[in-house]
Amino acid sequence: MPKLDICFSPELLPLYDLRGQVAVIVDILRASSTIVTALGEGISHVFPVASLEECAAYGQQHGCLTAAERDGIPAAGFDLGNSPFGFLDAERPVRGRALTISTTNGTTALRRSLAAEAVVVGAFLNLGAVADFAKRQGRDVLVVCAGWKGQFCLEDMVFGGALAERLAGDFDVHSSDATLAALHLWRQGKADLSAYLLQSAHVRRLNSLEASQDFEFCIRLDAYPDVLPIWQEDRLINAKN
Amino acid sequence: MPKLDICFSPELLPLYDLRGQVAVIVDILRASSTIVTALGEGISHVFPVASLEECAAYGQQHGCLTAAERDGIPAAGFDLGNSPFGFLDAERPVRGRALTISTTNGTTALRRSLAAEAVVVGAFLNLGAVADFAKRQGRDVLVVCAGWKGQFCLEDMVFGGALAERLAGDFDVHSSDATLAALHLWRQGKADLSAYLLQSAHVRRLNSLEASQDFEFCIRLDAYPDVLPIWQEDRLINAKN
Repeated sequence: MPKLDICFSPELLPLYDLRGQVAVIVDILRASSTIVTALGEGISHVFPVASLEECAAYGQQHGCLTAAERDGIPAAGFDLGNSPFGFLDAERPVRGRALTISTTNGTTALRRSLAAEAVVVGAFLNLGAVADFAKRQGRDVLVVCAGWKGQFCLEDMVFGGALAERLAGDFDVHSSDATLAALHLWRQGKADLSAYLLQSAHVRRLNSLEASQDFEFCIRLDAYPDVLPIWQEDRLINAKN
Repeated sequence: MPKLDICFSPELLPLYDLRGQVAVIVDILRASSTIVTALGEGISHVFPVASLEECAAYGQQHGCLTAAERDGIPAAGFDLGNSPFGFLDAERPVRGRALTISTTNGTTALRRSLAAEAVVVGAFLNLGAVADFAKRQGRDVLVVCAGWKGQFCLEDMVFGGALAERLAGDFDVHSSDATLAALHLWRQGKADLSAYLLQSAHVRRLNSLEASQDFEFCIRLDAYPDVLPIWQEDRLINAKN
């Protein structure tokens, strides 16, 4: 039976052997939720990049939309920040466009996980799509939490617990303490996920109206059931297209 | 109000600035529990060392008892392993003797935390003594979980939650997601700590009769209320002596 494990910080990735595994990159607030939304709203593919310079360069080179954020705030000189609502604006349709995105934590987690057999992006918005993919692959899965500057984030861990619950019949979710703890927290919080995660330091850090709308948007389960961002060569595409 | 934070793995210590803080080193199974027991049973001081070679050398040089374990098993050629019961054997009294101890994870966590203003060793066995010390210091506290080869261990995190509960009135225990999660798990598990922690991968790894006795011994709250191992120069002494 394949195993589900959770890595709480990209800083701990050297302790894991990702070869042959499925890596699920999670940055609930907000990179992974935003990427799922972008592909769900018709973005053709996403180039995740580490630096603002790369982001600007990709934008010019590929003629794509640019999205960038630093410390939770949209970076100056780019088309979009890191809010999923940027892809829901009727006045700026995004269907068919490519996107390059640079974020503080999510991109780093993704780039450090490329040794895995398959790299997908997970969020509450596409939880079911990620679970189905994991079941079909039948390989060990490592949930890679982006965290906040290397430190533990409650919402990413709780996502790991939600995924563990969905995989429980088909995967070993009890041989890792990290997965056990995440399952406990998910079961404690799932009846009112919003209230539960509002305790989080990271959530409280997003203390604007926009951020609060983003938060409520990002915790809806399976809002984009047909989006599975998967890494292919140099970009994320929707494996379900 | 000082803050309580929890570092889940010694590998993450570079993300924290320990200067001016109190570091509480935790390796419930079993290094920190064993050190508390040793000092509680009259060991005069403890030299924690990283390697088996150092352990043997300290033993010769200081004429002290030697204790060593690798991968949960007593290492050959030393007086004791890493079981607290080694200090409770009426046929080998330990009162007044010095001890040198080398363990897989706990020693590493301690040695990497020496930048802190004060370094103490925490266990369920001396939870109250650690909480009292933290309150008197009034400094930020970082619980440093030894983990298992750098990875997350449920019992160390749950200890962090237990300490957070004791400090809740005097410390900020809500601005760190790690502390919040630990508090949740502690509150979930404390009514039957033994059953709760028996789910843990690490606990199940200790699947012998001796290990099971050790486990039940190590989860007793405040069994050694008068033991506070504190780092002084090159050794741990009992600050309460």
